[in-house]
Amino acid sequence: MKLQPPKGTRDFYPDEMAWRRFLHDAWRRVSVRHGFEEVDGPIFETLDLYRVKSGDGIVSELFHFTDRGDRELAIRPEFTPTLARMVAAKANALPSPIKWFCTPNLCRAEKPQRGRLREFDQWNIDMLGVEGALADVEVIAVAVDLLAELGVGPELVQVRLSHREVVRQILIALSVAEDKIQDAFTLLDAKAKLPAEVFQEKAKALGLGEEQVARFEIMCGQTFRVGQVDYLRQAAGVDSDLSDLVAIDAMLTDFGLAEWCVYDLGIVRGLAYYTGTVFELHVTTGSERALGGGGRYDKLIELFGGPATPAVGFGMGDVVLTNLLQDQKLIPDEVAPRPDAYVFAMTDAGAAKLPGTVAALRRAGLHTRMSYKATRKMAKLMKDAEACRARFAVILDDGVTQGKAAVKDLAAGEQSEVELAKLSQYLR
Amino acid sequence: MKLQPPKGTRDFYPDEMAWRRFLHDAWRRVSVRHGFEEVDGPIFETLDLYRVKSGDGIVSELFHFTDRGDRELAIRPEFTPTLARMVAAKANALPSPIKWFCTPNLCRAEKPQRGRLREFDQWNIDMLGVEGALADVEVIAVAVDLLAELGVGPELVQVRLSHREVVRQILIALSVAEDKIQDAFTLLDAKAKLPAEVFQEKAKALGLGEEQVARFEIMCGQTFRVGQVDYLRQAAGVDSDLSDLVAIDAMLTDFGLAEWCVYDLGIVRGLAYYTGTVFELHVTTGSERALGGGGRYDKLIELFGGPATPAVGFGMGDVVLTNLLQDQKLIPDEVAPRPDAYVFAMTDAGAAKLPGTVAALRRAGLHTRMSYKATRKMAKLMKDAEACRARFAVILDDGVTQGKAAVKDLAAGEQSEVELAKLSQYLR
Repeated sequence: MKLQPPKGTRDFYPDEMAWRRFLHDAWRRVSVRHGFEEVDGPIFETLDLYRVKSGDGIVSELFHFTDRGDRELAIRPEFTPTLARMVAAKANALPSPIKWFCTPNLCRAEKPQRGRLREFDQWNIDMLGVEGALADVEVIAVAVDLLAELGVGPELVQVRLSHREVVRQILIALSVAEDKIQDAFTLLDAKAKLPAEVFQEKAKALGLGEEQVARFEIMCGQTFRVGQVDYLRQAAGVDSDLSDLVAIDAMLTDFGLAEWCVYDLGIVRGLAYYTGTVFELHVTTGSERALGGGGRYDKLIELFGGPATPAVGFGMGDVVLTNLLQDQKLIPDEVAPRPDAYVFAMTDAGAAKLPGTVAALRRAGLHTRMSYKATRKMAKLMKDAEACRARFAVILDDGVTQGKAAVKDLAAGEQSEVELAKLSQYLR
Repeated sequence: MKLQPPKGTRDFYPDEMAWRRFLHDAWRRVSVRHGFEEVDGPIFETLDLYRVKSGDGIVSELFHFTDRGDRELAIRPEFTPTLARMVAAKANALPSPIKWFCTPNLCRAEKPQRGRLREFDQWNIDMLGVEGALADVEVIAVAVDLLAELGVGPELVQVRLSHREVVRQILIALSVAEDKIQDAFTLLDAKAKLPAEVFQEKAKALGLGEEQVARFEIMCGQTFRVGQVDYLRQAAGVDSDLSDLVAIDAMLTDFGLAEWCVYDLGIVRGLAYYTGTVFELHVTTGSERALGGGGRYDKLIELFGGPATPAVGFGMGDVVLTNLLQDQKLIPDEVAPRPDAYVFAMTDAGAAKLPGTVAALRRAGLHTRMSYKATRKMAKLMKDAEACRARFAVILDDGVTQGKAAVKDLAAGEQSEVELAKLSQYLR
């Protein structure tokens, strides 16, 4: 009997689950206060749904199967195709803008390694129906607010921003042919992993001269703060239309996000469907994979059969984020719910009243635990009460025959006699 | 492009998801106050894990697949095998008792019909390490408390209780051979769906005479209230050891559950691994499938390679429960989170302050929405504020140049002028 979970998946015992719940609650709380509504879809979809967006290449990365009706199905590797399907299906019936979030578990048939598992949770934020900088920046603001909520500051994580259309224009001005633009994006995306000579060689293969390769390198190698969009124009050395970035720049300042964000035209995002703004969340020390990323995908809903719909969104997984918070000691010690009361009996009369007392407290909505041990040693039982972090110990002894219990406030150390009939009221 | 979710699965748009979240929150709240800790496991397990508990027959009911390493895997159809694996893996390191809950999504390759889908959520409650009536009744108490939490009373749903060992003894006293006991359980389980003659015929095939068949029918056809265990003995017409049921009977009364429970020795539960108490939650009108069920499974942890461990638990799905609550009009009108503020601009100066004002309120933790419309018609915007159920409308007009906004309390209808710097404080 194999007692381990399948390769690349996790068991969540109470300690790990308490953190997972804490993180999901934070994702949800932040999403809701930014006006996003929760949605979800099936754990599996038709395999074709993933082919629409990603082509046949995606299939080897999926856990896929056929049902008895010979339908080809796959466990979801991401939520975006489901979202696009859902929006396309009810496009005319949905309010505008659509502001949706979800926190699905996703599965990918990848080789497990640090920061990457075969099953993980991913927070998704999507805003559809709003063009331009406001929606882009609202979405970035939610991601930043989540980091702040978890104690992460801009000195630790930065949003690295780029814009697909701006980069495309710069590449064209550098004399990259239209039909080589996707290759140039792919090269940009790989740059961090390539030696300089290899990068330069591949850049030349795109049709760039020596000086243009140098300008390409400068463009994607330097970063600029919010407020320095004009400097970017100089560095790129071309006269591009930066109006989208100028609007985003102003909006980032309005939203109070200037210190959290940096422009980095080397950010591409691997996925081909982004059309405008793209961004990734990176640890400033560079020690981890990206915490998450997203961008504008104005063509996707059409691809899934819906009407033309401007859209922007991002995804943030739980694995890299949790690694970062662990390393930074930002995971709170006490993420599990705290009991209101720990109830135990010291006498036979008390023991007879134990189940009824516990049941009544729970019915009154109090988080109540009890001792299942036969022991009646006060010190031992009091230690158990403290170990589970209960606020109060409720001691049932012969006082129950007069309808009374002893109640000890475990923080203050004070003990009182309380009528059983008023116990839940007292503990509140 | 197929825009529907796969057969037997569901899309959760914001309205459906708000209810799903409400239900999950209720499951969690009730579990926690009864002292259960949340756990979870992988969405898929090795196919062998399900074979251990249910044999090869289970495979056709699973969505199963192989990964690139040729491992046979299956999407989880239930949580119990995962739980048994997790407990067996860390048996010596876990505290006793183990009180765990979870709310996984599960998948079964079944024909979808009312109350039964291919993907659904199931609330699981399990208590391990405690023998006897206390644990059995604690687990039943959690299920009942959830019903009460959702506005369901004992007139609508009853816990139908039986005890495998008691039924086994009665069957043996009725001269059913040991090796026919499983067949007798199967017959009992099917009884409700069989015409009386067919039942009698099949009972005779188990080796029962005419009088014994009649006693068998009486035994499993009548129900008894809590406090009437002795009456059950008479009806069964045999001198069985009912001490387990007697203890449960007393404990049900202690926990205040007498009116919620009824003994029904016709309840078997299909699954072969139950060893003692078994129960199901049934709508009293009989109009739905069981809402859930469970029982004692003292041998299961051993079967998965762990130490002998007394265990009792139950599962409750979301589908039948939601159908019932819908029919009974017990689903609250407003299950979605309610915005604190809806912010809009009436002038250009106000519009310039809109993003910053919204961002500041959200950073302060307030659920804040805004208008994305170009309109500056007050009546229209106020209608939008009311439509999203916001507590306050925040109106940004030229007053913002003096650092002020107009705030309307949408319940009271009163409007005040508030300093922007104190807005979040005012709205709290």
